[in-house]
Amino acid sequence: MRFKAIVEYDGTEYAGWQVQPNGRTIQGVLEEAVRAMLGESVRVVAAGRTDAGVHAAGQVISFQLQRALAVHRLQGGLNALTPRDIVIRALESVADDFDPRREARSRVYVYRIWNARWPSPFWRRYAWHVAWPLDRQRMQAAALDLIGEHDFSAFQAAGCDAEHAIRRVLRSEVTSTDAMLTYTIEATAFLRHMVRNIIGTLVEVGGGERPERDLPRLLAARDRTRSGPTAPACGLCLMQVNY
Amino acid sequence: MRFKAIVEYDGTEYAGWQVQPNGRTIQGVLEEAVRAMLGESVRVVAAGRTDAGVHAAGQVISFQLQRALAVHRLQGGLNALTPRDIVIRALESVADDFDPRREARSRVYVYRIWNARWPSPFWRRYAWHVAWPLDRQRMQAAALDLIGEHDFSAFQAAGCDAEHAIRRVLRSEVTSTDAMLTYTIEATAFLRHMVRNIIGTLVEVGGGERPERDLPRLLAARDRTRSGPTAPACGLCLMQVNY
Repeated sequence: MRFKAIVEYDGTEYAGWQVQPNGRTIQGVLEEAVRAMLGESVRVVAAGRTDAGVHAAGQVISFQLQRALAVHRLQGGLNALTPRDIVIRALESVADDFDPRREARSRVYVYRIWNARWPSPFWRRYAWHVAWPLDRQRMQAAALDLIGEHDFSAFQAAGCDAEHAIRRVLRSEVTSTDAMLTYTIEATAFLRHMVRNIIGTLVEVGGGERPERDLPRLLAARDRTRSGPTAPACGLCLMQVNY
Repeated sequence: MRFKAIVEYDGTEYAGWQVQPNGRTIQGVLEEAVRAMLGESVRVVAAGRTDAGVHAAGQVISFQLQRALAVHRLQGGLNALTPRDIVIRALESVADDFDPRREARSRVYVYRIWNARWPSPFWRRYAWHVAWPLDRQRMQAAALDLIGEHDFSAFQAAGCDAEHAIRRVLRSEVTSTDAMLTYTIEATAFLRHMVRNIIGTLVEVGGGERPERDLPRLLAARDRTRSGPTAPACGLCLMQVNY
């Protein structure tokens, strides 16, 4: 019996989604919870393999169980067995061949920047604190240049194993209220560190270090060394996966 | 030279505002920061002595220094010396006789309830998770009954050292968006556990365990044993102090 779940997690204390030899991961904790509850060793797959310190408010996962089980019992049991920073918000049974990664039509990420002289004790885990002034209108204008189908090599981390760097961006916008600046990006798929590298570049636009219309030039050059630094993981959150 | 500061803190890791023999407190950390920076032993006083686990987004504090010092240097130094969960958001010099507690005209507290079947990993430190359904309209109707001058003995913790229990409530309202239910109360002053005891009672109204118009009866009876339980500290935040 195959299940699909929507999972939220505060990634602060984790070495990312994917199981690895050293460090506690979201995937590892979820697989351990299934094993503890049912005695079955399963592989839990996710729509997006978030990096260390990255959060999710709408990660989609899937796993296959040998036995049939009522959805509400499984959800209750797993939520009782996971730590408080991982919550299974929804659970349903799906077709045996459901693949949360391949079947996703798009993913929505949000990146939060706390833009004020002093940090916020409440947002320190969930936003990047940028103490210098950022021109939000410039950043929003630059963000719009990413919409459409482009080769995103300029924003791809070294070691990213994607076959090619062409992605379609459906939405790319900067909104803000008081000190909080929120960047929302929806794309068919993402490259490794893509959002954080875009943010590093947008913040340079906002700080006046780059021209407002720099992004088309960077996309065309397809050279990672010309774009901005990788922004910290804590500001990034996988909000939604669309099927 | 006397200073007035607006301080924000995540109270999760603290035994409350006030210095005590055992446990780390906000007051203790701030006094230690002044001592570390300037070598002066000061007493830092606050507008509201928040309990263990209670947060502040607009606590007002004051302290007197022997030496004169530029405000921006003092603020920068203290913020560098305090942990990340305590931030001095604003600082100014004030008259030597300024008393943040006595001179406050009113205080605004917010209490957050995460009202959904499952908790939120992002709000677990800042909201009380109530998994059963709450009728928000009933709670809002009940909240309005607190506005005005009343004897709040029904909502006063045992051991509260206030001279009398008469307080004037200027604002008392429940608002909500999706899973988040927010109670805002402004009053001239508060009794110990007053907001948390009001919340414990309002949640019983929202859950249908008490009639909607129960609060006038409770106020009149002035009997703590008839009102609801004390809600958890984590949902409470001192938002603002007005002078």
